[in-house]
Amino acid sequence: MEYKLFYAPGTASMAVHWMLIELGVPFEAILVDIERGDQRNPNYLKLNPTGRVPTLVVDGMPYGETVALMMLLAERHAESGLVPEPASLKRAEWLQLAIYIANTLMPAMRDWLYAAKDGDPEGASAVKALAEKRISSVWDDFEARLLKNGDYLLGDDFGMVDMLAIMLMRWSRNMPCSAIDRPGLRDYVERIIRRPSFIELSTREGLSGWPA
Amino acid sequence: MEYKLFYAPGTASMAVHWMLIELGVPFEAILVDIERGDQRNPNYLKLNPTGRVPTLVVDGMPYGETVALMMLLAERHAESGLVPEPASLKRAEWLQLAIYIANTLMPAMRDWLYAAKDGDPEGASAVKALAEKRISSVWDDFEARLLKNGDYLLGDDFGMVDMLAIMLMRWSRNMPCSAIDRPGLRDYVERIIRRPSFIELSTREGLSGWPA
Repeated sequence: MEYKLFYAPGTASMAVHWMLIELGVPFEAILVDIERGDQRNPNYLKLNPTGRVPTLVVDGMPYGETVALMMLLAERHAESGLVPEPASLKRAEWLQLAIYIANTLMPAMRDWLYAAKDGDPEGASAVKALAEKRISSVWDDFEARLLKNGDYLLGDDFGMVDMLAIMLMRWSRNMPCSAIDRPGLRDYVERIIRRPSFIELSTREGLSGWPA
Repeated sequence: MEYKLFYAPGTASMAVHWMLIELGVPFEAILVDIERGDQRNPNYLKLNPTGRVPTLVVDGMPYGETVALMMLLAERHAESGLVPEPASLKRAEWLQLAIYIANTLMPAMRDWLYAAKDGDPEGASAVKALAEKRISSVWDDFEARLLKNGDYLLGDDFGMVDMLAIMLMRWSRNMPCSAIDRPGLRDYVERIIRRPSFIELSTREGLSGWPA
């Protein structure tokens, strides 16, 4: 098997899982039961010392970081068209957007979800307040981008950044700043969740109830 | 001119400026005087609506996000060897490390430097406390990585992630968690700042006093 994905339903592994399904490449999916604490199991920590998901084993070596794994898969399966080709006009825009999501939205999500665990619980409300402000501003940015670009974040073609964005928008479903409160983003979600790869992912991960 | 870089000395544009010098490609460097407020000038905002540096104009189009720009330059000048080649053994490790820096260290730096500006000033101390904890843990990670890998973050070869790391370590010089308080990281810095490209960068940007 070319790839082995360690995943937990609905978590940061979701976009990588989705991408593997969308690519149609063979892979083995191994459930990390977070509630049971599998992520702290010494065997798992050997693969991923951070104790987080996803871990993707590629050619026998384990790697982490969702956005990095998606970039790697895009590069290894360039024929998929899930990212703009090197030297194409949209390549720089894709890189800029992927890095923006990685260094703005993803850390704000971490802050919102784990402020009390990562830092002093007494400071958590201040950390969460700033996180919420930042998350909202990314939703504004996404909405403006779709208005300008069309059906998907980079234009007419569905791709890697859309899978990443949908995963993160789904995380906001129980937050005060839920992405789909914005009509443009709700339309975007409705458009994408009809894709066979998303339906297949939802079945495999047992995802349901979003968007309500 | 192939590239036009809008920069401010010592800021997030520094690593991109350094990389352009290291690559030896022709570029035009345009100073954005932050103290004078050039970054809020309508002409600059047209190029970069976030009002931040860097902006790199590539083939006539402006792009932002330091890590994205460095990845783009690495791809456009693959012969430079500043990142591991696609399909090489180190490629996934490079991607993982670049994304880790982008989504862990860079946002923590933003929090430390701009907590009171980005969010409610009353919550800034809590945000900064968590940021400091995260920055320290990245320095620990860098130190462990150098101990394992050798002279540079990915092993024997100096490259893109080292330029990014040195810029961010320099930002910590007046923080309680200064990177070079760790002997392994001080050695790493001493090794790199002797490079002609860093000396040239320091002259052009007027950087001095680090490491003391």
